[in-house]
This record gives sequence, structure tokens and C-alpha cells, in this order.
Amino acid sequence: MENMIKVAVDAMGGDYAPKEAVKGSVAAVSEKENVQVLLVGKQEVLEQELSQCSYPKERIQIVPASEVIETGEPPVAAIRSKKDSSIVVGMKMVRKGEADAFVSAGSSGAILVGGTTIVGRIKGVERAPLAPLIPTKEGVSLLIDCGANVDARASHLIQFARMGSIYMEHVMGVKKPRVGIVNIGVEEEKGNALVKEAYPLLKECKDLNFIGSIEAREIPSGAADVIVTEAFVGNVILKLYEGLGNTLLSKIKGSMMSSFRSKIGALLVKPALKKTLKGFDASQYGGAPLLGLKGLVVKCHGNSKETEFKNSIIQCISFKEQRISERIGENLTVAEEK
Amino acid sequence: MENMIKVAVDAMGGDYAPKEAVKGSVAAVSEKENVQVLLVGKQEVLEQELSQCSYPKERIQIVPASEVIETGEPPVAAIRSKKDSSIVVGMKMVRKGEADAFVSAGSSGAILVGGTTIVGRIKGVERAPLAPLIPTKEGVSLLIDCGANVDARASHLIQFARMGSIYMEHVMGVKKPRVGIVNIGVEEEKGNALVKEAYPLLKECKDLNFIGSIEAREIPSGAADVIVTEAFVGNVILKLYEGLGNTLLSKIKGSMMSSFRSKIGALLVKPALKKTLKGFDASQYGGAPLLGLKGLVVKCHGNSKETEFKNSIIQCISFKEQRISERIGENLTVAEEK
Repeated sequence: MENMIKVAVDAMGGDYAPKEAVKGSVAAVSEKENVQVLLVGKQEVLEQELSQCSYPKERIQIVPASEVIETGEPPVAAIRSKKDSSIVVGMKMVRKGEADAFVSAGSSGAILVGGTTIVGRIKGVERAPLAPLIPTKEGVSLLIDCGANVDARASHLIQFARMGSIYMEHVMGVKKPRVGIVNIGVEEEKGNALVKEAYPLLKECKDLNFIGSIEAREIPSGAADVIVTEAFVGNVILKLYEGLGNTLLSKIKGSMMSSFRSKIGALLVKPALKKTLKGFDASQYGGAPLLGLKGLVVKCHGNSKETEFKNSIIQCISFKEQRISERIGENLTVAEEK
Repeated sequence: MENMIKVAVDAMGGDYAPKEAVKGSVAAVSEKENVQVLLVGKQEVLEQELSQCSYPKERIQIVPASEVIETGEPPVAAIRSKKDSSIVVGMKMVRKGEADAFVSAGSSGAILVGGTTIVGRIKGVERAPLAPLIPTKEGVSLLIDCGANVDARASHLIQFARMGSIYMEHVMGVKKPRVGIVNIGVEEEKGNALVKEAYPLLKECKDLNFIGSIEAREIPSGAADVIVTEAFVGNVILKLYEGLGNTLLSKIKGSMMSSFRSKIGALLVKPALKKTLKGFDASQYGGAPLLGLKGLVVKCHGNSKETEFKNSIIQCISFKEQRISERIGENLTVAEEK
């Protein structure tokens, strides 16, 4: 098939490897006709897993890789030494054009390092940001950067804003995405040195719908579609989202089980509550793309299950069809020349 | 009375001034015998408000101040020019020893600037951090710094850790408070330049119970008693706490009202739920102390009502009785000499 999108999937990464990666791959090829999965990992193990599944055989192929990069390993050394690891093998396929995208729930550090050193940045891109979608009251926003690019410079933030805008417009279908920069107040003179430097530069970008500073308080209400920040702050936002959501929900559950009366009530509210909270479940949206690379790399949560793998694989289709990498390359080149 | 604690209260600060500040003051002197409130603001307005309340007359006194610093005003200029504002008048009383503490729900910027320039820092304190208590699964943690000290240096973070530890031990009664530094991973080599510099210095502080890095995900579960971070990140954490809590609760409320079945259920779970969520309501804990000053300054939320004012005033009693400012001075001097 001509328009088949080829996605290399790291079958060895994540807490539930290889089972959930395999199940997610099977689900993805069953749901979408124009995707082919290249399952990277230990051949025998994967053959065994796949033998238990039913799926169109021609659309899942095993690509052998004998090594696994563990989460605790120092990323740079791991990428260099484990040439036959699922991450290195999968990323090399993207670099060579044998795959359009690579999906992994493995070591974040190794994925970030491998993305830059193996897949490589698009010409003009200074740093490749990790950009997860986070749930909001109204839908989702893109939080960019949550990666390893700590101590970013203002010029990086401008590129993050551009890449995030392209992603939200063409993958998520948001017209003129509102771009906000995370700040500690909405007045223009507020902020740390980085934000004060980036703010006027963002304001000058005529190609962006820059709405100014947003305070962290406004993020969950969906005040911006693209939330620009450097990686340390982005990581804090992402992880606090997770932690606070879990703590609040466990407290709410606990309180509902505290008396006979509330237990009965809990049974009655449960279906409605479940539906609502599903909208706040990050796994729905698949993994986070690492933007600005010569091919797509998607980082899934370490605890990803079938659904997140499936959605991450499906996400690669629009990314490829919408030519996101090409658009980023063109946009940044034009912006540079101006 | 010999051990009477004198608290100057900014009656003109906050969204509900002067009514809620006055009500909170009346509630505080009614609840605690050893506190006297000096209500700072427009005399006629305050006389009018107080005339509607019943309280021990000798324990609330009006201190006239004709001006008000508005939230939007540039803080430095406002503190300089509005000499007869409630913030400047109240803080001067602390500096002169006419009051032990100052409580205000007014302009954060003006309170931070005034704290340093009028009340003044304790000798040896490089920066005065704003340190709110935030709710966790188990109780509360102190988040230090959430103030205006952006672009902090490592030496500041070490002092924040010490001041926060003293506060949690002597005001909140936590033995050997666990001190954690906010980071994007738990490994020692992780972090931005600031955290990498501060981490080994914190590890060397034998007077602290330093437990290492904590990720934002672990904050709500109560992984540390004192959460050390620079102000930009602290502000993001504090405000995201607020925003995410509100969004989740409004979604939960909405889902409970979505069907007849869930409405009935909601009625049954409401009492238990309300009790639980109260534990996650920051107003319970009073305002945030600005630590490291020659007297106590407490910053309340702009939307503070009676309870937060009352609790903030009462908080000043243990702060004074436990000699927190003196302990901070002694501790930092000893640490310096080592």
C-alpha cells in the first residue's frame, strides 16, 4: 500500500514490556488500515507474544534487537555502547528512512539522547523539545518543553513556540493556536531572566498567536493551546499534574468509602465520575512527541499499557500525513531568514 | 498582660477589605486570650465595621492609615511614595517593635518589597523567602520559596532549607523535618545548574534532615516536610496546586450533576466529600510567612476571608512564642561560622 505509515515500536521499553507494547501494536494495526508496525526487540520473546494474538500478519514485523537499555543507565553511555538495543536499532531505522516514526516507553534519557544523536535534529533546530499533551477543562494543551533541555536560552523557547504551534494546528486541528509563556504574573515586566528575554521576542513573532504570560493557575482551565516553558519547569508541571490528580482522586475515593451513606452515593455517582475522570487521563492522548527531529520519536510513559501504545502509534499517522517535520523545517528556515 | 502578642493587621488589603480582615481579627481575639490586634487602615471605615461586632474592646485598636496600595501598583514606587498606606504603617510598627507581626492580604509585590526594605532582614539572611504551607495527602508541607526572589543562587536555597526546617519543627511541631529539593529526577546528577550546585551543599548540612531530590509528582503525597526550590518554580507549584484542584473539583461536581442517578448519589456523598476537600483547602492554614525578617510578616491570599485572617493572626502566636526569628538568626550565624 502506497501510503502505509511505518512505525517502529520499542517492544522492550516500559514497565510492562513486552506484553503491552505488543498488545498496543496489534490494536493499532487492527484499528487503522494504513499503519505497519516494526516491533523491535528480542525475537523469540516477541514471536511468543505475537503467537497469542490475532492480527493481519503482513502488518506487524519483528525487527531483532538483542539488548535492552535499562531506565537507570546513564543515557549517553548506553546509547553509545548498546548498539543492538531496541532503542538504538529502532532509531536507526528512522534515520535511514526505513521507519517513519519510533515509539518507546523506555528510558527517557536514552530516548532524548538517541533522538538528537541518532535520528538527528532538523536543520535550524537548536534543541528538540519533548511536548506532551496535558488534559484541561476544555480539552488538551501542548506543554513544551518537558525534556532534558534544562537551562534553556530564549532562542530555544521561541523555536519551541513555533514547533508547538505547528503541532497543535496540523495534528490536533486547532486553528491559530494560542501560545502562552509560563510566568509568575501576567504583567510584562514580571518573570525570571529567561522569561523577560523571551517575552518581547515572542511578541515580535507575527506567525504566532502569542497571548502573553500565563500563570500556572490558568493551565488546567485551558488558557493556552501551546504552553511554552523551559524543561525544568515543564517537567515540574507535568509531574505535579500527575501527582496532584492521583492524590485528590485517592482522597475522594477514600472519603466516599467512609460511611454507609457515602458508599451508596458512590455507587450512584461512579459511572458519571469515571467518564469525567477519563478525560483527565493522560494515557488517552498517547505519548509525547519529541519535536524538531528528522523523523518522529514518541516517548510514552514508563507505565504505559495497550491503549497508550495504540494511541501513540496512531498519532504517528497524522504526524506523517501532515508533514510536521517538513513544516517545522520550512517554518524555522523562513523565520531565520527574516 | 505580659505575654500578649501584638499583631498589626492590614485592614485595607485583599478582595474583601475591610470586612473580612475585621471579622478575622474579631474572631482571633475571641478565640485566643494572648493576642492583641492593631487594625491598620482608614479610621472611620474601621470604626464603622467594628461597631457592628462584639469583642473584648481592649484587644482591638485602630491604627489610622489614610492610603491604600493597590494590587497593580509597581511595588517599589508604591512603598516609597505611599508613606501613610496600611502596608507601610503596619510594617513600620513591626520594625519599631510596636507590633510583633504584620498580616496582610494586600499586594504581594509591596509586601515582599516592604518586608525587606522596612522590616529588614535578619543579619546573615541573603533573601527573605515566602513560604506557604501546602496541603498533602498526610498533612501539610512547607514550600519555600514562592516569593519574588527569582533567579536565586545556591546559597539562597541552603538558607531557605534552614529557615524552612526551623519553621516546620518549631511552629508545626514536626520532629526532624525531611528536607527535599525539587528536581526532575531523583538521581544526584540530574537537574539544572542551580540544583546541581545546591544539592551537594545541602548534603553537607549536618543540621538538616536532607532526603535528596523530590520530583513534583511526590509533593502531593507528602514526600518531604520542607520543599526547597527557587521562587519561579515554587510559584508555579503553588498556583498549579490551586488551578488543578479547582478544575478537577469543578469537573467532578459537573459530572455529579449530569444525571438523575448521579444527582441522588451526590447528595449522599456530599458530607464526606466536603470534609475531605476541606483538608485540601489552603485557607485553613492561614497565610504564608515571609521568613528571615526581623519580625514576622504574613502574606494572605488576595481572596482571604475571615477564617484565613483569623488563622494567620493565630499563627503569629506560635511564631513569636517559639522565637522563630531569633532561632533563624542564631542558626544562620552558627552555620556561617562553621
